[in-house]
Amino acid sequence: MREVTIIGCGMTKFARPLPGSLMDIASEASLKAIDDAGVGNRDFDAVYFANMCSGEFAHQTAAATALVDELGLIPAPAHRIENGPAAGATAIREAFLGIASGMYDLVLVTGAEKMSNVPGAVATDLISTMLHHEAEYAHGATLPSFAAMLTRLYMERYGLTENQLAAVAVKNHENGSKNPYAQLSHKKCTIEGVKDSIMIADPIRMYHCCPVSDGGASVVICSAEKSSELGIKKPLIKIAGLGQATDTHTLQEREDPTVLKSVQLASQQAFKMAGLESKDINVAEVHDAFEILEIVESEDAGFFPKGEGGKAAEEGKTALDGELPINPSGGLKSRGHALGATGIAQVVELVWQLRGEAGKRQVKDAKNAYALNFGGFGDNSVVTVLRRRS
Amino acid sequence: MREVTIIGCGMTKFARPLPGSLMDIASEASLKAIDDAGVGNRDFDAVYFANMCSGEFAHQTAAATALVDELGLIPAPAHRIENGPAAGATAIREAFLGIASGMYDLVLVTGAEKMSNVPGAVATDLISTMLHHEAEYAHGATLPSFAAMLTRLYMERYGLTENQLAAVAVKNHENGSKNPYAQLSHKKCTIEGVKDSIMIADPIRMYHCCPVSDGGASVVICSAEKSSELGIKKPLIKIAGLGQATDTHTLQEREDPTVLKSVQLASQQAFKMAGLESKDINVAEVHDAFEILEIVESEDAGFFPKGEGGKAAEEGKTALDGELPINPSGGLKSRGHALGATGIAQVVELVWQLRGEAGKRQVKDAKNAYALNFGGFGDNSVVTVLRRRS
Repeated sequence: MREVTIIGCGMTKFARPLPGSLMDIASEASLKAIDDAGVGNRDFDAVYFANMCSGEFAHQTAAATALVDELGLIPAPAHRIENGPAAGATAIREAFLGIASGMYDLVLVTGAEKMSNVPGAVATDLISTMLHHEAEYAHGATLPSFAAMLTRLYMERYGLTENQLAAVAVKNHENGSKNPYAQLSHKKCTIEGVKDSIMIADPIRMYHCCPVSDGGASVVICSAEKSSELGIKKPLIKIAGLGQATDTHTLQEREDPTVLKSVQLASQQAFKMAGLESKDINVAEVHDAFEILEIVESEDAGFFPKGEGGKAAEEGKTALDGELPINPSGGLKSRGHALGATGIAQVVELVWQLRGEAGKRQVKDAKNAYALNFGGFGDNSVVTVLRRRS
Repeated sequence: MREVTIIGCGMTKFARPLPGSLMDIASEASLKAIDDAGVGNRDFDAVYFANMCSGEFAHQTAAATALVDELGLIPAPAHRIENGPAAGATAIREAFLGIASGMYDLVLVTGAEKMSNVPGAVATDLISTMLHHEAEYAHGATLPSFAAMLTRLYMERYGLTENQLAAVAVKNHENGSKNPYAQLSHKKCTIEGVKDSIMIADPIRMYHCCPVSDGGASVVICSAEKSSELGIKKPLIKIAGLGQATDTHTLQEREDPTVLKSVQLASQQAFKMAGLESKDINVAEVHDAFEILEIVESEDAGFFPKGEGGKAAEEGKTALDGELPINPSGGLKSRGHALGATGIAQVVELVWQLRGEAGKRQVKDAKNAYALNFGGFGDNSVVTVLRRRS
């Protein structure tokens, strides 16, 4: 398979609301990535647009075509990838396949979501449409309710304490305060503050949940040959490993709900493809739509033994100066979670980390990075492993 | 690039309404395709789900995950492709890239849409969301209004007669009457009947427009090596050429609205890749959401000189026994147009034609086939060229 590199990246600040339309947000992120790669005068072979709910939030379909026109990239083929909140990493994986096949050399992958067009409760309902339609959604299940059940079960099974759970939020807000793109960059929090925040779905509190966000993120992906030809000056980042796996759509059918099988499988696939093991990873972005997820995901990715993810956070192992910094961007918790943009924003953060461009939140000497983007309640996980190539 | 073949196909009848949920429809089509390929006991490497408006019509997102679970194909990676009504062919093209890259060998591509969940006027509004959001949709433009303007302009410029335009509908209803999967298989029509049908948007009448449809279609796609290994007994159909191109999102920015540039470009790409010319094609399915489109598309694909598509239909050149049979399935006009399913239904029809399995509507000795799936009002065209391999 041909080697594939990321040569440019960019993102908007995440916010609620972010001014402008869905297309404005997608365009801003795209132009930043194109500019970062220095390929503004080049023809793109394809454009992928990652988005979960353009029709529902923005009453707009075929938005990939709109983006291509907006950016002046006609006649590049384009379409939208929807995979719940895992759309972003899925789009990167599809673009990878297009380049690996030999059909493309230079591809733009942009994710964006404009959630603030609808009230928060409507957003929660629309997001819940990714749950099983008859067995879950129709009965009023929402993502926070599932996160609450998982947290309770995990606490009982593994002795997770409230302080450990809060430590994840505190760490992510601390990281986010160093990230100018983070939605909650102005908000740090304390263990006590998290424990005092309002209850959303017992035992889940406000500070255990990510916010509703508008935002966009974009990467320029390129075959290794073409990137040499283009004379890219910044360090090349190789897409070294990819994994994607599906688990049961209903939570009730899983043997053990505290195990995210799709995360395990997708991680194993990506590590195998990259020729790496979990211990080789120097920095990770994981999908902490709820703080319990960061804990469980960090275990199922292989970074910590089962039941020890919370302790790891409490002990500072996942802090910026810890043995494996997780969510240096602030994660979904502080950077924000603009659905279709999230998986790409994770990769953008890791590219900055691997290039040494992450400013105050820079992780030292990172060479291998891991991103986990996650759809449904772990129904569909997509893992991207990046490696600094030069 | 690796050779890629279609080894199985299936579809539901198109209807309004079709009983069952979106998942029921998608599953029926998928299981028929898997059964047709004889690979029910095999693991699939990926599942692509083509659909335009699952969120809007069926209040369901992440439907690709639902489909994988429904079919018992866990842990195959899956996601949804949305590209307006060109989603179906786009999904086939993405699956092709995945196999061509070497990542996959056996892939399921299913398209489905359940439009009947909403009233017709709501469906027309939702479909219109693929037009330019600020420059067109916000002003009340709909697809029928664009088709009316194109028809009027084309009539004035090229002398298209009402009889010629009606001839396309008569031919497609005649073909559809021979297709048990066609939504309007029970309805033939006459030139006079078309000309007497109610006016939708002057000069467009009811019989110039496709119906609103529920339906599903599915193909099993496989690397050529793997299909040999599987010992497929039916004639193998090679995906010989693919093209995809984007045109301006707004119609008003096109130099000549009677020319569909994206159709021209996508066709040229696909013919080049296949090593064929338009004259080598023995049977075609084109995107006649409105009958004027079949005429213009058949010209921009290179089958007839500009301005002569209508005459060709009137003279019987595009009939089942003509020099180039177009829309043997009945086309969108009679088979129906279930948005995300349409591009795949076109390919299913062509596979049946190339295998000699098309029953009463069989085109004689077809070896090379052409499908055009079309999004927006020609903003995004996807062309698939198929070739009987054995």
